[in-house]
Amino acid sequence: MKIKVLTISEDILGANKEKARQNQSRLDKHNILAVNVMSSPGAGKTSLILQTISGLKKKARIGVIEGDVASTLDANKVHELGVPVIQINIPGGCHLDANMMENALNNLPLEDIDLLLIENVGNLICPAEFALGEHKRVMLLSLPEGDDKPYKYPLMFTEADVVLINKIDLLSYLEFNIPAFREAVIGLNPKAKIFQVSCKTGEGLEDWFSWLLDDIGKMKRE
Amino acid sequence: MKIKVLTISEDILGANKEKARQNQSRLDKHNILAVNVMSSPGAGKTSLILQTISGLKKKARIGVIEGDVASTLDANKVHELGVPVIQINIPGGCHLDANMMENALNNLPLEDIDLLLIENVGNLICPAEFALGEHKRVMLLSLPEGDDKPYKYPLMFTEADVVLINKIDLLSYLEFNIPAFREAVIGLNPKAKIFQVSCKTGEGLEDWFSWLLDDIGKMKRE
Repeated sequence: MKIKVLTISEDILGANKEKARQNQSRLDKHNILAVNVMSSPGAGKTSLILQTISGLKKKARIGVIEGDVASTLDANKVHELGVPVIQINIPGGCHLDANMMENALNNLPLEDIDLLLIENVGNLICPAEFALGEHKRVMLLSLPEGDDKPYKYPLMFTEADVVLINKIDLLSYLEFNIPAFREAVIGLNPKAKIFQVSCKTGEGLEDWFSWLLDDIGKMKRE
Repeated sequence: MKIKVLTISEDILGANKEKARQNQSRLDKHNILAVNVMSSPGAGKTSLILQTISGLKKKARIGVIEGDVASTLDANKVHELGVPVIQINIPGGCHLDANMMENALNNLPLEDIDLLLIENVGNLICPAEFALGEHKRVMLLSLPEGDDKPYKYPLMFTEADVVLINKIDLLSYLEFNIPAFREAVIGLNPKAKIFQVSCKTGEGLEDWFSWLLDDIGKMKRE
């Protein structure tokens, strides 16, 4: 399948929530687990998606939606792994929304997907405000960003089902207080799962894969 | 002076550009050089501001505006250095705008400031779209974010007068192609000045200080 590029004009208003509900029903009908992956620019969303494809491709059929202001850099990398991928470009926009998600779903082979990974635009603020129809929300916080981010961008942490502490391989070069960070996240969101990973070295990713496989299994059984 | 916290509701519409022009006239009248500092979350805006205060406090009178979704963490750090600072909190917002800037100017001792450093909300997208009345725009890109960011967030790079490559002390631990990054920035914005710095070790900051002092001098002479 070739990479499709959808360039979408701003359509922020309208019933985003209702559209997200419709998207989720459609995903449920196909037993697809949809995961919205959010973070700051450069925190490692694409690396996480590439690692997840490599780690799970024998256990689940994966599809990807790539959201960016511009470029198809990330979609190209996913495409090279032989996975169906849609690039959504949003000039002037700062997050995906449910209409864009619907448009992407219209262009994906839904009958051939178990796990849909959605890479949101790199932004710690706006993506948390717009439901897409996903079942789970995952956020990455990379060590170089600092351990104070839950205080400064609380909504993202409050909304996440999973918080991945990424770039753990850099821990010895940085000042990052992991216990304090975990405490701040749990203070905002006691149910959040927190995993420490390196999408570069692969460290810690097994726990993330297990969590995904567990939820993919639940989708199939329900 | 105590830290003031202005909590501002969304008022995105309206004549932002006209208001920015008014803010700039007001700054000009006081010979204040205003610099809008933008970056992703955790790229080092606050560290840059703290280093700049330490480096220039004997040569210029500095004031600071701190923009954040939530918290006064950054304003507290500035306040400890004895510099007038206003914290602007924008729940649900993702950038500063000219109305917020006016509100902050109303609360700062303008007659006692030569250099006004404005820390925008951590976000590589929206802040570039809203003029505040600043004279110069500075963006930080920290090495861990990756060298592909000019392709993915072009507006921020196009709008910047100065691009600071921060966290240069981490270069040996990361894959970041500095010549390729510089070429991408210059491709978007041939006039951009690019400095390589570490706001942690202080490396390279002298060039940044000289650039600021030069512009502060121009404000006084004009």
